[in-house]
Amino acid sequence: MQESPNPQRRSERSHRATLKAALDLCAEQGYAQVTVEGIAARAGVSKKTIYRWWPSKGAVMLEAIDEAALQPTGFSDTGDLAADLHQQMSGTLSLLTDAGIRSAILGVLAEGLQDSQLAGQVHGSLFKPRIDSFKERMRKAQQQGELAAEADVDVALDLLYGPIWHRLVAHLPLPDGPYLSKIIDAALAAVNRRA
Amino acid sequence: MQESPNPQRRSERSHRATLKAALDLCAEQGYAQVTVEGIAARAGVSKKTIYRWWPSKGAVMLEAIDEAALQPTGFSDTGDLAADLHQQMSGTLSLLTDAGIRSAILGVLAEGLQDSQLAGQVHGSLFKPRIDSFKERMRKAQQQGELAAEADVDVALDLLYGPIWHRLVAHLPLPDGPYLSKIIDAALAAVNRRA
Repeated sequence: MQESPNPQRRSERSHRATLKAALDLCAEQGYAQVTVEGIAARAGVSKKTIYRWWPSKGAVMLEAIDEAALQPTGFSDTGDLAADLHQQMSGTLSLLTDAGIRSAILGVLAEGLQDSQLAGQVHGSLFKPRIDSFKERMRKAQQQGELAAEADVDVALDLLYGPIWHRLVAHLPLPDGPYLSKIIDAALAAVNRRA
Repeated sequence: MQESPNPQRRSERSHRATLKAALDLCAEQGYAQVTVEGIAARAGVSKKTIYRWWPSKGAVMLEAIDEAALQPTGFSDTGDLAADLHQQMSGTLSLLTDAGIRSAILGVLAEGLQDSQLAGQVHGSLFKPRIDSFKERMRKAQQQGELAAEADVDVALDLLYGPIWHRLVAHLPLPDGPYLSKIIDAALAAVNRRA
């Protein structure tokens, strides 16, 4: 490809290089060891450029995770709610098997537990958009009659996704495919009960 | 009380003073700021004494949390499984409302996500003994016919406790009493379903 003198294109390239450098360094060194200086050096951009776009290392990592997670954690609507949930939850878990993304996710979750400013960003960038998509998918299922109209979507969220995060903080093995199916079956049966 | 020259009693006093100092400093400074030096100074013991008993700050904190959690996270057996679970889960949540214990718990969970040695201790000291007690309580409920013999106790653990840890890492409000009842109802209904 020919070098582009277009400043916007150059800026996009630096942006992408920064996010890639952040995850590559997480894979090589582990989140705690990575610095903004190191990311800048690896990406071939200045530290000033990074701080123009992001307030902190955690914020760079959050965007890198968000971008990597975009496709695997999207919700399909095939008309089969359990299958769509299984696909999305498997996608979420697959992020935790890639060394760089796993280290970045554990790092920002850990930092979020200790730092109230990053906590807000973890909630706002990582969890909230996915919770919104989840609720939208559940409402569609209610409209399509696949899920009871009175099903409590907040309870469903907790029952479905709780196991993943519980197992992560308690250092229990993460769910495999068949176990995910059990959790999805159980959670949907529970919220579909008639009062 | 009169001063005791008994070395064992003096040692127990130092041990208790160390655990109290660890939680007091967490409340005042936050886990990340607390050092073994600071704990030693506050407890009036030497750093060497602390390292004779614990390998790290995290290990001191884990024992302090475990001791504070002993009573609130114990399981009763009143013959009413849902009520006993509600009491135990409320007790677990109450630990997260005490400034010192909350900071210590968030700190060791965060450190455990980043440090594989502390991860093993977090699992072994905080989670495993409570998971074992939970499973024992569930087996009693099965023997007493309150819970289906075929109920999957691992799924029950995930559905019941997942919501607490999910909400903690995602920075969602922690469950209140009525919401805990909904989760317990839903989880028990799900694992009690006949195949």
